[in-house]
Amino acid sequence: MNPYSNLLIYFTSQLEEFKKDLNKQPAELYQPMQYIFGLGGKHVRPLLTLVGNDLFNGKSEDAINSALAIECFHNFSLMHDDIMDVAPLRRGKQTVHQKWNHNIALLSGDGLLVVAYQTLCKSDGNHVRQLLNVFNKTGLEVCEGQQLDMNFEKRMDVKIEEYLRMISLKTGALLGCSLQMGAITANAKPVDQQHLYEFGKHIGIAFQLKDDLLDVYGEQHKVGKQIAGDIISNKKTYLLIKALESSTHEQKKTMEHWLMAKEFDTLEKIKVIKTIYEELSMHEKTNAEMNKHYQKALGHLKMVRADENKKYTLQQFADTLMNREN
Amino acid sequence: MNPYSNLLIYFTSQLEEFKKDLNKQPAELYQPMQYIFGLGGKHVRPLLTLVGNDLFNGKSEDAINSALAIECFHNFSLMHDDIMDVAPLRRGKQTVHQKWNHNIALLSGDGLLVVAYQTLCKSDGNHVRQLLNVFNKTGLEVCEGQQLDMNFEKRMDVKIEEYLRMISLKTGALLGCSLQMGAITANAKPVDQQHLYEFGKHIGIAFQLKDDLLDVYGEQHKVGKQIAGDIISNKKTYLLIKALESSTHEQKKTMEHWLMAKEFDTLEKIKVIKTIYEELSMHEKTNAEMNKHYQKALGHLKMVRADENKKYTLQQFADTLMNREN
Repeated sequence: MNPYSNLLIYFTSQLEEFKKDLNKQPAELYQPMQYIFGLGGKHVRPLLTLVGNDLFNGKSEDAINSALAIECFHNFSLMHDDIMDVAPLRRGKQTVHQKWNHNIALLSGDGLLVVAYQTLCKSDGNHVRQLLNVFNKTGLEVCEGQQLDMNFEKRMDVKIEEYLRMISLKTGALLGCSLQMGAITANAKPVDQQHLYEFGKHIGIAFQLKDDLLDVYGEQHKVGKQIAGDIISNKKTYLLIKALESSTHEQKKTMEHWLMAKEFDTLEKIKVIKTIYEELSMHEKTNAEMNKHYQKALGHLKMVRADENKKYTLQQFADTLMNREN
Repeated sequence: MNPYSNLLIYFTSQLEEFKKDLNKQPAELYQPMQYIFGLGGKHVRPLLTLVGNDLFNGKSEDAINSALAIECFHNFSLMHDDIMDVAPLRRGKQTVHQKWNHNIALLSGDGLLVVAYQTLCKSDGNHVRQLLNVFNKTGLEVCEGQQLDMNFEKRMDVKIEEYLRMISLKTGALLGCSLQMGAITANAKPVDQQHLYEFGKHIGIAFQLKDDLLDVYGEQHKVGKQIAGDIISNKKTYLLIKALESSTHEQKKTMEHWLMAKEFDTLEKIKVIKTIYEELSMHEKTNAEMNKHYQKALGHLKMVRADENKKYTLQQFADTLMNREN
């Protein structure tokens, strides 16, 4: 049970109105925006904005433009990431470039980023500059994270520190930003904003590590995507990088063989790599790193000066994100 | 001789500093931004921002962030347009996606749009909201114009009114916006901002019509690109659309034959189409439309309440844009 179901209901109803306003011409520019909003998702990021706002007793109406802007930004980045990853599906449905074409996905994504700013600029005049500063900084960080992620595809020597920095930029920053923007609209003090940001950032890192784990150890019917897809595609996850780092000479040679193989038996590859992960206790090590960031996050939440009950609810919500099975 | 050489020198020196600040990591994200700024160009748009500011006796320092943001936006749109147009060259140099790759051009363009906003947000607090409103509106209009332009590629029945609307969005809006932002930073009255915007918009439309003319009637060594490239690629220009609209049955059949032809003798195609353009006085008709917008522009400039000498200088500058040979 989502402790924030009221905020979620409020957000989704506002998003519906927002989508209606995108009934504009040319249709090829605006329909893909409506389409990607319609693919669902858990709305974690805009919800965190409303939660950050509520934590400091702000009114949700004051944070809604920030929440919608965050949702626009997230979907803009998904639209463009899907082009870059040549992904045919998102949440089981055709991606925008697949349903329309590359140029439309590119341009509609651009337009959606402008719409994000347009929406953010509707915020109260006392907050808009602070909001924009966080939003701009985060926007660039997400781009930096995505570029690093692409760079890692071609490298075999990625360090764990580099990986953690990448997911901090690509995933952590936007979660931190979402919460901080809510804190801003509720007039929270800068020091509280900062702790809440750090809480969100570390939750984001832990969230991504959980993602890496679920790819290998999740149950297919729950995760809803191909199990061990990261292993098949040689994606540089925490598990792969850490395993390469801590493997014996023999294990490393075996892994490199499978990473290089152009043609291979998929099930055999998964089996071999998973066996090495097991020998190296990668499940436990990734869990430990995840918990480290989760604990860091909680340390920052503790420092936030706000209602203890509300903070506890936020911690419980973070728990559900960590312990999710999909 | 550019009457604004001092403003141009100021802008280019500031742009150099700005480019240095983009010496950041990951290089694959930031180097393409520096590269596209380095391709030169006439800096018409940011110059217009400084000119709009000067018209109302503003200090250039107050408008420089707007001018730089406009330059970022323009280059972001070039980077993405070049992907969409599969263009190998820009100003005689490799385009970004050609020099690096598609994903880098896509992501670096995204980053550059965020940098545009980041730069704009450094503006004085009294102006930032007004500036953002114009900038956001224009950003979406440019996307709309680009989408319409792409839609027109697949249509044979584009109307002259649709074409004029498209170039008004794709080219006119940003020129109007550039001038208006300068007016805003100099605290011009809304009514004066609006007339200056309309002046810029119509100059932009006339500017694009001049472009259409130069493609067919320019001298190759001056224009610096393939002459009649628009005819070869069936680009929907004012000349082509107007010619299709006003042609006899016989002329229309001939044009459609060449538009449909998959393989053709390039020189022969150019010759035939140019002959029809001549029969239909397309040079004169396009010139007339161009002048109509130029006159509209001057009408709006007349309404702007500002120093008459400065207005006259701006008119002369617009003259040089209209009478350019490249």
